[in-house]
Parts: sequence; structure tokens; C-alpha cells
Amino acid sequence: MKILITSGGTTEKIDAVRGITNHSTGYLGKEIAELFLAKGHQVTLVTTKTAVKPEPKENLKITEITNVESLLRKMEPLVKEHDVLIHSMAVSDYTPIYMTDFAELEDTEDLAQFLHKSNTESKISSASDYQVLFLKKTPKIISLVKQWNPDIQLIGFKLLVNVRKEELFEVARASLKRNKADIIVANDLSDITPDQHIAYLVDEKNEEKVTTKSAIAQALFERICHD
Amino acid sequence: MKILITSGGTTEKIDAVRGITNHSTGYLGKEIAELFLAKGHQVTLVTTKTAVKPEPKENLKITEITNVESLLRKMEPLVKEHDVLIHSMAVSDYTPIYMTDFAELEDTEDLAQFLHKSNTESKISSASDYQVLFLKKTPKIISLVKQWNPDIQLIGFKLLVNVRKEELFEVARASLKRNKADIIVANDLSDITPDQHIAYLVDEKNEEKVTTKSAIAQALFERICHD
Repeated sequence: MKILITSGGTTEKIDAVRGITNHSTGYLGKEIAELFLAKGHQVTLVTTKTAVKPEPKENLKITEITNVESLLRKMEPLVKEHDVLIHSMAVSDYTPIYMTDFAELEDTEDLAQFLHKSNTESKISSASDYQVLFLKKTPKIISLVKQWNPDIQLIGFKLLVNVRKEELFEVARASLKRNKADIIVANDLSDITPDQHIAYLVDEKNEEKVTTKSAIAQALFERICHD
Repeated sequence: MKILITSGGTTEKIDAVRGITNHSTGYLGKEIAELFLAKGHQVTLVTTKTAVKPEPKENLKITEITNVESLLRKMEPLVKEHDVLIHSMAVSDYTPIYMTDFAELEDTEDLAQFLHKSNTESKISSASDYQVLFLKKTPKIISLVKQWNPDIQLIGFKLLVNVRKEELFEVARASLKRNKADIIVANDLSDITPDQHIAYLVDEKNEEKVTTKSAIAQALFERICHD
């Protein structure tokens, strides 16, 4: 099968030297890619410059993106030509519009104007004590996947922080339904340490618990290739 | 001599999964560290997790920081026990205070209240179309160095983007004076490519031009050890 995997975290530029980054090492995507490669499948890994990556292999294509816009451009054609998407990348929810001194906010009656401005300078000045950054929502790539390819098996991820298990499952099922995903891998940042990665493979009816990155990869492989 | 070098870029957390990062690969700091090590000096490298680093060596100590606060804590004792500081790290000018929906801004008369709020949730919700992030200035570590150790040789860096050479020199000289630095290495992002790194060693009277990372390291070594 042709397996498309995303890993790492996107960065949205504030200016030429600063950006908002979603932290993700890429280890989980690497582990999943390596398992599917070992089982003889063809893998395309969409990842970022700083993410850890598998060693080069014959059946592995690696392609790097930076921000949500470049991810979106890269994903549409790839989704159309793969059988499975395992979307483990940490994708920015918001992207910068405009950054300014706090004083500029206090001087205006019309705050909405800042949603339509953009910085013309390459490096935003750092003179004032307080600054304000306006951000807008990025397109949700996971919501477009089944429109691009209704036949693809879609595995999404949902990372929350310090929530009850019931809330985690509820949010995962909402994502499952909204995005027509086949499985949502739900996890809580507080359950992830260097030696442990507790996650739940959530589908319409069940939540399968696994406790390490290699167990997540193994469980995904079994569900995708044996169901 | 005991040489303290900083490299990489700091990250200021927005929440448990997102941060504002100053991009810096760490290659220049690595090159400088390796030259001083090869010449028999003792090097302490203060850097970040994702920066490239020299191979382990007997005379090399490497210590990692994340944000400006952790850098500040680490630097004070180190500055006191070194002869030279080469501060090539890209340090965040601002750190997040509070992130909220844009709608919350429009509902208030008192914008300054947001400068004193903080987010209690671990992962900020991504429901609204627009969000606003309030940021405050971080302490300028370079301005504290000579207070901590008046005898240290201080080499600062100034990175601008797409400016005239005269402006670059002017800004570098202002930093030289304000921070009582011995040299400011002034460079423009538009002059940095994988094969080239144009920089100017700016002191009170002269600007010495060099064109690669290894030439920057060599010029700094000569100025620090032969002057």
C-alpha cells in the first residue's frame, strides 16, 4: 500500500527572524514510517527541517514543508495518490497577521483594522515595552482530506494537555465525525515522557489503549493492514 | 583562556505546545567553538536543543537552555568565571503574556488589563477566527554582562534584515556603546546563504569585513588572542 505520513511541527513566520512553532520532535512519525517500510509498504513522509527522520530507504520519499500554507499545497496532490494518511504532524492553528506596539492599540477606536494590516518591515522593531500580535485561524487540512480523496484511510491525531480521559475521548470522537476520519489517535501531553507515550486509538465504538511510540505504530499497522 | 560562547535561538512558550522561536541553526557558534578548542582554549557553549553542536571534546562543556529566563539564570555565574563572551545566540526580544480571542478585545474599555492577565489553560483553545497575543520585552542579557564581570571581553552580535550598510554600522555602534562591548559582529540576513556569511567586526573606529562563518571565527580569534 501507499502510506502518507506527516510528522514534526509547522512554523508560522512573524517576521524574517521569528516564528510561532508547534513543538514536535518527529519521533512518532519516524517510528510509524519505519514499521510500514519494514513490512514492505511504500511510504511518503511529509515533515519539517528540524524533525528526526528515518534513514534513507528505497521505498521512502521524504519531503519537507515549513508552514501550513506550504503543507496545504504539498498535501492535496499527495492525498490523491495514497491509500492511507497518518497525520501525526503538529499543525499551527493560527498564523500571524500583524504585530505592533501596544500603544498603537490604545490610540485607535477601530481595533478590527489590525486584522487587515500587515508588517512592511522585515524585522519588527523591538523598542516598545509591550507588543501585540494579531493572528488568524489557518485552514484545517484534516477537514479537506476526504474531499480530496474519499477512498483514503484517514488517521488523525488529537493532542490535549491535562484533561480527563472522558474529555479526551469526546474531543477525539468529535474530530472523527467532523473529518470523516477512520481513527483518531488521542493523547495527552502529560502522559508523554521519553520512555512512555500513552495514546488511545479512538473509533466510533472503541478506545484501544497503547503505551509506547512503537506500540502506537504497531497498533496502527494492524488496524490498517488487517481490518 | 576561558571562552564562553552562546549559539542557537531561544523559544518563549505561548502554551504547552506552542512557542515563539528565534531561528538560528547554531552553525556559527559551533564553528567559533571548534576554532578556540583547536587552539587549546577552554570553551563553554550555552546553546539550545535543536542547534547543531561540536563533537564532545575534553575542553568543551555544553549546556542547554530554552527561553530567556533560563538563559539569564545560566549566564550570570558563567559570565563571572570566563575571560571572553561571544554572544551569538538569537535571543527573543519579547515573551508572551496572554493570548485571547479578538472578541474579548472589542468587549473591553480597558485594554491594559490584558498586560496583567495570564492563561490558566494548558493548551489555548482554537475555536475563534482571530486571536490576539500580548507580549512584553525580555531583559537584555547583553546589557548585564559588564555589570556581572567588568573584565570580560564582550563580543556581541547584531542581525538586521535588508538595511543599508550605514544603518547596520550605526545600530552596531549604538549597541557597542550601550552594552560596553568590545566588538559587535554586524550582519544582514540578506547576506547570509549556505555558502556565504558576510559580517563586519565593528568596534569604535573600524569595520572589518569577512565573508564566511569560518572567516568570522578566524577574525574573532585573532582579535581576542592577539590584540
